[in-house]
Amino acid sequence: MKKELTIGLIGFGCVGFGLYEILNQSRLIDARIKRIVVKDRYKRREIGQENFSFSVSDILEDEEINVVVELIDDSEQAFEMVKKAFAAGKDVVSANKKMIAEHLDELLELAEENEVSFLYEGAVGGSIPILRNLEEYYNNDTLTSLEGIVNGTTNYILTKSNSGIGYDEALAEAQKLGFAESNPTLDVDGYDSKYKLSILLKHAFGLTVQPKSLFNLGIRHVSDHAVSYAREKGYRIKLFSRAEKLGDKVVGFVAPHFVKSDHFAFGVNDEFNAVVLQGLFSDQQLFLGKGAGSHPTASAVLSDISALKFNYKYEYRKSESNGEVEFSNDFFVKIYLESKYIEAINEVPFYHVDELFQSDHINYQTGWVKFSELKTFDFNHKEEVSLVVLPEPLRESIPSNKMANRPLLENLYT
Amino acid sequence: MKKELTIGLIGFGCVGFGLYEILNQSRLIDARIKRIVVKDRYKRREIGQENFSFSVSDILEDEEINVVVELIDDSEQAFEMVKKAFAAGKDVVSANKKMIAEHLDELLELAEENEVSFLYEGAVGGSIPILRNLEEYYNNDTLTSLEGIVNGTTNYILTKSNSGIGYDEALAEAQKLGFAESNPTLDVDGYDSKYKLSILLKHAFGLTVQPKSLFNLGIRHVSDHAVSYAREKGYRIKLFSRAEKLGDKVVGFVAPHFVKSDHFAFGVNDEFNAVVLQGLFSDQQLFLGKGAGSHPTASAVLSDISALKFNYKYEYRKSESNGEVEFSNDFFVKIYLESKYIEAINEVPFYHVDELFQSDHINYQTGWVKFSELKTFDFNHKEEVSLVVLPEPLRESIPSNKMANRPLLENLYT
Repeated sequence: MKKELTIGLIGFGCVGFGLYEILNQSRLIDARIKRIVVKDRYKRREIGQENFSFSVSDILEDEEINVVVELIDDSEQAFEMVKKAFAAGKDVVSANKKMIAEHLDELLELAEENEVSFLYEGAVGGSIPILRNLEEYYNNDTLTSLEGIVNGTTNYILTKSNSGIGYDEALAEAQKLGFAESNPTLDVDGYDSKYKLSILLKHAFGLTVQPKSLFNLGIRHVSDHAVSYAREKGYRIKLFSRAEKLGDKVVGFVAPHFVKSDHFAFGVNDEFNAVVLQGLFSDQQLFLGKGAGSHPTASAVLSDISALKFNYKYEYRKSESNGEVEFSNDFFVKIYLESKYIEAINEVPFYHVDELFQSDHINYQTGWVKFSELKTFDFNHKEEVSLVVLPEPLRESIPSNKMANRPLLENLYT
Repeated sequence: MKKELTIGLIGFGCVGFGLYEILNQSRLIDARIKRIVVKDRYKRREIGQENFSFSVSDILEDEEINVVVELIDDSEQAFEMVKKAFAAGKDVVSANKKMIAEHLDELLELAEENEVSFLYEGAVGGSIPILRNLEEYYNNDTLTSLEGIVNGTTNYILTKSNSGIGYDEALAEAQKLGFAESNPTLDVDGYDSKYKLSILLKHAFGLTVQPKSLFNLGIRHVSDHAVSYAREKGYRIKLFSRAEKLGDKVVGFVAPHFVKSDHFAFGVNDEFNAVVLQGLFSDQQLFLGKGAGSHPTASAVLSDISALKFNYKYEYRKSESNGEVEFSNDFFVKIYLESKYIEAINEVPFYHVDELFQSDHINYQTGWVKFSELKTFDFNHKEEVSLVVLPEPLRESIPSNKMANRPLLENLYT
């Protein structure tokens, strides 16, 4: 029943090298890397030139290789390679969240057609075995919600912000420590978190939702005032990739959240990743671990490789069984919305206002908004607007109040 | 491939009733309880008398029933019933840690002989899917250590102690809240934690170790001074069920530990359960959840039932593959040992002493002792002796020092 594994590795960045070290130095699992394909022939690498090939066909046409481990950056190139690997009858392990989020259903169809496995635990939450748990353990319908801190860079920056260090300084520190890319958009604007949310939605609730239909607001515009508002109330700010059942629908989005101290995510700091699951009967459950870095991610890839020895496949049981469950943007969420420009606040329709504060240099309003309307704004590109979700359950409906009809008044102080 | 599940439930205590509520009220998974067998015909119960039978044969001889869920207290009675259920060709789900710890290998043999499944996630860590993760995800040999807070009662008491409330008061509070039994020995002396450690050793490292060969020291004699020592150093005290690889051996025991603030267990407070795994490459991973209570434990039982629909079995791959790994008591551990009687300290052989403090009412010594020697003392029954493990890695050997040859001197102050 145990399969001999011979690996073709595509890509030799940080995770690829980590995997190489683990497999070749530890010999812990009985699998060997036979060939490594990289794009750039002239780049200096950690191991000798003789270890590399430069054409993917060297892997695809090698019949001894039965597992392709794809660890390159470019999601479209990766997509083409993975499709070819399936066609060549090879199992694939990948950590390419963008490719998986954007092409999952097509990839699954092809994998099934070719009777191969496609595993990608390393794509979400680094070393945390969250996909496997969603697949195998939470496979009855008792899972009610999922809140993931699945981007280490933003969690590191927010941790610093929570302790009073400004965004720019915190970002620079994260870049110095190697967590953040020099172009940090994918991380700080919540795109990376959104790809991961898309994958989580599939395994948690059996739903295919394209990243482009998911709302993502990152942490770039989390203001100093939002941070002091959090401190005053005993909250911390965390970027959540969030999905939950609401009535007979499933909802989900990426946004900064105020988190109370009794929430399991409250203590998840620095570059750590975590997923908090809520079950109907199990209550809160936390999975915490290192989300990034060479070895933690490679350890997830390794666990996938190890599972291939026993012909493990994700079963996607929830996708089969939930013909009736739909993804929805039709709900209300309570937010904190702040800007020095009152127009920016007034243009977002509130259905219920709880607090309203206006001064000559800062204005904010808290209350309930319709998510389908909120979603039409591109807040990542609205400088001077700070939006953080408040710690109240999402709701299918809310009673409106009079305050909601009272716009902030221009020139109140001039 | 999906199996129709018809359940015979034995026992209707807190977890049994929780399961009944979940299954019958939510109808979330397609399984029904056909028969409930209880011992006491005259006890007042949450549901009507007509729901109960009083003979296990009503379940065993019912051919429609294909799953027996065993949730009684008495481990020997449970053992007999489970064996009969196997013989009758029924899958079994149990949460009886004592029975499982003491009879696992025999039960597995019988389950295999009768081609049935035997699942028991609810036996360790309540709602936390730790056994399933050890089985399925950490099945390559990269797991290096496991530290479990698997007894909610003792964690609750220690949390109170850490914040300055005395042992007796904390225990009384735990009893009032329903965490602790009126006879709390099993919990506070670490027996419950030991049964769970025995089960964890099987799934983490493939080892069968009888509970009676495992050392367990509970929290009954954790002194006020140990608590202030912890506070002074920034530690907290936690009761660990601990197992790890040391050289080519595996070691394990139950004892109170000082825990540093960067350890994932540091923030696990009150009645919560948690398991911290350390992998060669994944680094620290935390699984946190509710360890006790009707619904959390029942949710684990429910997940096992749900897995039976897909004919899930534990594979015990590590037991098959590790012919060479042995359990060992041959190592050194650094401890804090305190007593007002200096003889009590002097009788434990230290190989290396780091600190030595003597006064007219309290004496303590910290340093390295040989575990195989420590294990011969029954510290649960040594009042006035407080032993807490210090946060240093276990070692195969230590250099001895002169301080170790300097016993505390009697009558120093008289």
